[in-house]
Amino acid sequence: MTESLRDIGEFGFIRRIAAGLPPAENVLERIGDDCAVVRVGDNLLLLTCDAAVEEIHFSFSTATPQDIGWRTATAAISDIGAMGGKPLFLTVALAMPAETPVAVAEALFGGIREAAAAHGLHVAGGDTTKSLTHVFMDITVIGLAGKRYLPRHSARPGDLLAVTGSPGRSAGGLVALQLKRAAPPLVRAHLRPQARIAEGQWLSEQPAVHAMIDVSDGLLQDAGHIAEASGLGVDIDPALLPLAEDLAQFQETLGVEPLDLVLAGGEDYELAVALAADGHKEVCRQFAATFSLPLTVVGRFTDTFKGSRVAGEPYDHTGYDHFRI
Amino acid sequence: MTESLRDIGEFGFIRRIAAGLPPAENVLERIGDDCAVVRVGDNLLLLTCDAAVEEIHFSFSTATPQDIGWRTATAAISDIGAMGGKPLFLTVALAMPAETPVAVAEALFGGIREAAAAHGLHVAGGDTTKSLTHVFMDITVIGLAGKRYLPRHSARPGDLLAVTGSPGRSAGGLVALQLKRAAPPLVRAHLRPQARIAEGQWLSEQPAVHAMIDVSDGLLQDAGHIAEASGLGVDIDPALLPLAEDLAQFQETLGVEPLDLVLAGGEDYELAVALAADGHKEVCRQFAATFSLPLTVVGRFTDTFKGSRVAGEPYDHTGYDHFRI
Repeated sequence: MTESLRDIGEFGFIRRIAAGLPPAENVLERIGDDCAVVRVGDNLLLLTCDAAVEEIHFSFSTATPQDIGWRTATAAISDIGAMGGKPLFLTVALAMPAETPVAVAEALFGGIREAAAAHGLHVAGGDTTKSLTHVFMDITVIGLAGKRYLPRHSARPGDLLAVTGSPGRSAGGLVALQLKRAAPPLVRAHLRPQARIAEGQWLSEQPAVHAMIDVSDGLLQDAGHIAEASGLGVDIDPALLPLAEDLAQFQETLGVEPLDLVLAGGEDYELAVALAADGHKEVCRQFAATFSLPLTVVGRFTDTFKGSRVAGEPYDHTGYDHFRI
Repeated sequence: MTESLRDIGEFGFIRRIAAGLPPAENVLERIGDDCAVVRVGDNLLLLTCDAAVEEIHFSFSTATPQDIGWRTATAAISDIGAMGGKPLFLTVALAMPAETPVAVAEALFGGIREAAAAHGLHVAGGDTTKSLTHVFMDITVIGLAGKRYLPRHSARPGDLLAVTGSPGRSAGGLVALQLKRAAPPLVRAHLRPQARIAEGQWLSEQPAVHAMIDVSDGLLQDAGHIAEASGLGVDIDPALLPLAEDLAQFQETLGVEPLDLVLAGGEDYELAVALAADGHKEVCRQFAATFSLPLTVVGRFTDTFKGSRVAGEPYDHTGYDHFRI
């Protein structure tokens, strides 16, 4: 039987194509991190793109075009934050059926423009073209690396796993939308996520922070990406997980175990970091004081096993892999 | 009735969204040219993206995945050439159905990688995701501007229109593929176009060259883009048009008037320039001597009318507008 993308999964395919690329002196980080890091003159630039497909990543039945534009742009902008960089410019590719109302197309673009303005970057250019049936968007963001950029692959054994804010709220909002149940603050978290740009820059300046990622696929899976790239394992202690008040509040409405949402729900764009155990309390204290936002230790990286675990055991819901759902 | 994208066309939509963008100090050229031109530190960067959708821009029934990857990447790389810049890096967004054979996905990516290598740039990163039915690709290229970059909007009244090489061969190849007729050199021109990078850099260094564009939508339409952006009209003299030997040779096979292909056929990625009448002969002579490729004067820009004409008259086949075909 012919092997399909479903068989090897998104990450299997990425590993294969990354293996075929020749090394390049001015490409410091390539496929496999939140951003590519490239050298242009004296500058280190961060490059990232995020694609979104109608009925896979979004649906006009659960979100306005403006919200969809915002979310897609924020997903891409967040990757710059996850390297500790400053987003500068974005380009937009939009493929839409010719029957698309102009008002819908303008609102999609309006949401992108709004997210760019909110995060301090400029829409520089793009491409617009026709598709047969569904809307497709791709947003590429160009950013500037800080004095230090934080790839995924530099966690060390014994580092702690810490996460900003309260992940899982966006996933709760998606459940509410899909089940048509009322959970307004969670729905808002899903439709209007914020990229943690200033937080990412601050974290990248702390020597105790060794690696960073944004939580787009789910905390457990994204912590697992840090672990895998660093040749380590990661164990999450469920007793330490921050649980947003509104996730607990809407538990019955949604009928979902809140901890499942915290562990496996993506698209909050919180940041997860590998943090040296030595001095971590001071980093968490200063972070909370600076941003009025918790930075919570929720687990530990180790070289005694590979993969990601919860309370020492494998966990059922590991997050999102395109091609496998 | 609700106004749709078909009603206002690709360029109508681009004009609308461009009008809504606030000016930005570090964005020198924005939507409406081949590339955006942005400032990062001491460097002027060129940004461009090109999207391609299955059954709109390409079909697996007429091209191999490798050829499709090559063509899509070359279309984006060519935009850097059209500003006289040096392409440095590209990112790829690929959305594909989960049933896509891994071999097809790898070959698509292989064609992109091959085009990047052939034009001296690196694949820096990307995003891979699932689509429901068709393959969608977006390729973003980051380049470095030369000492002088050539936008579309700087043609002057009395400038001559000149074009490199022999446009129309790619369109001839597409006709051959669609009609399943044999015209091997034209089919090759369609499947494996080359971006004119060195030629674009050389042209941007000639003070007599005032504006430049790559011929992606058809010579008449792209010359019209220069004219429109410069507030001028352009008149093409059909007697001056370069006609490739193989276009004439396969005229009967294809059953298409070759001059129609030269005027309205896109995707050869030849360069069209607005050239000062004074000294143009020397520029054309030196260009031909340097690149063993003709640079042919085919028309003239004027302030006596707006729009594009052939022998002083409007012309039926003006090229490609997404949403309107």
